Amino acid sequence: MTKKRVVIAGMGFGGLRAAKALAGNDVEMIMVDRNNYHLFQPLLYQVATAGLEEEAIAYPLRSLTRHWRGASFLLAEISSIDLVEKNVITDAGAVPYDYLIVAAGSRTNYFGMESVAAHAFDLKRLDQAEDLRNHILLMFEQASREPDKQRRSALLTFVIVGGGPTGVEFAGALRELIVYVLSQDIPTVSAAESRIILVEASDSLLTAMPEDLRQYAHSKLRTMGVEVLLDNRVVGATAESVELYGGAVIASHTLFWSAGVAAAELAASLNDVERGAGGRVMVLPDLSINGHPEVFVVGDMACCFQQGMPLPMMAPVAGQQGDYVARVILAREQGKTLPPFHYFDKGSMATIGRSSAVATAAGFKFRGYIAWLAWLLLHLYYLIGFRNRIVVMMNWTYAYWFQERQVRIITAKKRRAVSV
Amino acid sequence: MTKKRVVIAGMGFGGLRAAKALAGNDVEMIMVDRNNYHLFQPLLYQVATAGLEEEAIAYPLRSLTRHWRGASFLLAEISSIDLVEKNVITDAGAVPYDYLIVAAGSRTNYFGMESVAAHAFDLKRLDQAEDLRNHILLMFEQASREPDKQRRSALLTFVIVGGGPTGVEFAGALRELIVYVLSQDIPTVSAAESRIILVEASDSLLTAMPEDLRQYAHSKLRTMGVEVLLDNRVVGATAESVELYGGAVIASHTLFWSAGVAAAELAASLNDVERGAGGRVMVLPDLSINGHPEVFVVGDMACCFQQGMPLPMMAPVAGQQGDYVARVILAREQGKTLPPFHYFDKGSMATIGRSSAVATAAGFKFRGYIAWLAWLLLHLYYLIGFRNRIVVMMNWTYAYWFQERQVRIITAKKRRAVSV
Repeated sequence: MTKKRVVIAGMGFGGLRAAKALAGNDVEMIMVDRNNYHLFQPLLYQVATAGLEEEAIAYPLRSLTRHWRGASFLLAEISSIDLVEKNVITDAGAVPYDYLIVAAGSRTNYFGMESVAAHAFDLKRLDQAEDLRNHILLMFEQASREPDKQRRSALLTFVIVGGGPTGVEFAGALRELIVYVLSQDIPTVSAAESRIILVEASDSLLTAMPEDLRQYAHSKLRTMGVEVLLDNRVVGATAESVELYGGAVIASHTLFWSAGVAAAELAASLNDVERGAGGRVMVLPDLSINGHPEVFVVGDMACCFQQGMPLPMMAPVAGQQGDYVARVILAREQGKTLPPFHYFDKGSMATIGRSSAVATAAGFKFRGYIAWLAWLLLHLYYLIGFRNRIVVMMNWTYAYWFQERQVRIITAKKRRAVSV
Repeated sequence: MTKKRVVIAGMGFGGLRAAKALAGNDVEMIMVDRNNYHLFQPLLYQVATAGLEEEAIAYPLRSLTRHWRGASFLLAEISSIDLVEKNVITDAGAVPYDYLIVAAGSRTNYFGMESVAAHAFDLKRLDQAEDLRNHILLMFEQASREPDKQRRSALLTFVIVGGGPTGVEFAGALRELIVYVLSQDIPTVSAAESRIILVEASDSLLTAMPEDLRQYAHSKLRTMGVEVLLDNRVVGATAESVELYGGAVIASHTLFWSAGVAAAELAASLNDVERGAGGRVMVLPDLSINGHPEVFVVGDMACCFQQGMPLPMMAPVAGQQGDYVARVILAREQGKTLPPFHYFDKGSMATIGRSSAVATAAGFKFRGYIAWLAWLLLHLYYLIGFRNRIVVMMNWTYAYWFQERQVRIITAKKRRAVSV
């Protein structure tokens, strides 16, 4: 009997956990990704704020497959999925499957606002983090030699949209980069000259958190010097300005967008499949899709209801779903079935700055130093690769002790001039 | 009395040593560079072979100026130098000087061979090292799914031109990357399938080394599986082939060029100044230029004769010259003069592979493990920045113990698609 072939489309948190659970079992496994590495997205914002080098949060996928019998990796861009012929269509040819795990993640959702899409930075990919880091550092270099006061002020103004964990963590890290590093680097630019404006559409930051933790995060950010604009939203942008709902315009060369995500484009290629908000694919209780029990969708791409609500687009959901579908496949091969998927919420956390974070876990709430320490340790734990853990720990220790960030190098200018 | 202003054009080894020697003295100092970091070029080849991350060999220049009173940094591209008005002309405006240290380094010299210039990789800048790393890794990914035998062989063939230290070190590091890492990563591609061809125009590798060390390096490379072609040279290239003198054509998608350097373009903007081979600027015994005692040229840009021979274009020469001109300037301000510049040759070294290197120092010759260890320690010592030293040491230790290189991530595809 030939082994069944499981194809995993996308090696984010969902795909990776599925692969780990399948490894060593009696199936053939092909992991497909457009990148040759797994990316630890939760720390992308630290790459963007010069706290970590890119390579520290990327783990080469072939480091995994080289140790797993029956597993192989294909570097390819997936264009569509042929559910009838059971083929994943890629730029490296068609890949037939017996089981398919679709885990292609999400893309940024600008809700159709073209001017925002054209000018905003977002953080999904490694190159975007590097671009944003280069841009931030360049703004300070340009400000240091800008004689015009208004232009200088616009160069030093940063607008962040979205008061969720990404927006909050980025705002805090950016403020610390400016206060502890850039304003020390450039004596002619003071931290007080620079503005960070965090815009949130609802009436609170971190809406998934309990009320007192939200208020802690809010007042902490304000103390650090971040301006928080609640009940407001960004409706347009140019290269040098950001427009708010109601018409107010902020002169700023930097707009960071973390106010919306939608399923990756690949979701649209799954024909005849029902879709929820943001184009997410509706899945059955075992995370397969209607009419195709051999096809599973996990992570940000999947719209999976629990207690009447769709599960959030977060790494822990994707990981648990990836692990679950791997076990469903293995069980089915043995003629067994598993109970429906159930997400176990271990809690959530967001770091705000030095020795300051908020966290919930097992019904308890934490804030301040203890939450911050927990955040550090958990992120180190979940990071893939021994070497990466050491590099990240070293960078964090170094930054904490010396209040320096040595990764503040501008790499883009030359590259852009050379490529194309 | 206002302080005299010293402008340093270019912050490579020459500029950096000059700046360090001037720091803390009674002059104003402006360091100008197109990048905001000092680059440790001798280890670029390790970035290109996935042994080190980019950031580990770059040191932010503002880390230095923030601690030096009277020193500032300007991120700018220098277009020319106005010797009459005493201005450095940059894309951020004109910078007047009292003293000028020109230390803009070198560029790759393809000796007018346009097809080679169009298709060859070289290693001068950080982005070039990343491009080359991405390309090498991509060649193996493409070979892993290439059914055509000839095409596959061309993808796995690497031609390196130039048998100096850069060519030898790159050849050894690439071979080890293939044997220990890539052929393990990809079970369908064997190390024996892959060819590395090192082409040298003279009759020996490492011509600056004593005869027995040259032979050691040659036989060591051959044992590792590198093909060495002496008395030969590359005269043309396409994206998929390399042409040798005499007409032989090697099917190869990768051509690495380390067979020639010339002075940076900026040298041409110094009017009425005599130039030597490769456009290098002829300097007087105190490294100033004829008719302009306030302008000094150091490093690869300078053509400085010693015992009838021009000094080699190497980091130690640049460093000693930078240090010397700083002392000349400080002495002159006190009405003193210094004896002419004299280069003190501490020796040279090249690493070939694991536990294998050649070195000369103080009239002694070393090879094998002891030379390799000396190479490691000296490179760590000369690398700038405590954090960088730790990161590099960790990568080397990790690679040595585990024979793995975790930096083997392909970052270019996306970036190229995004930029421009």
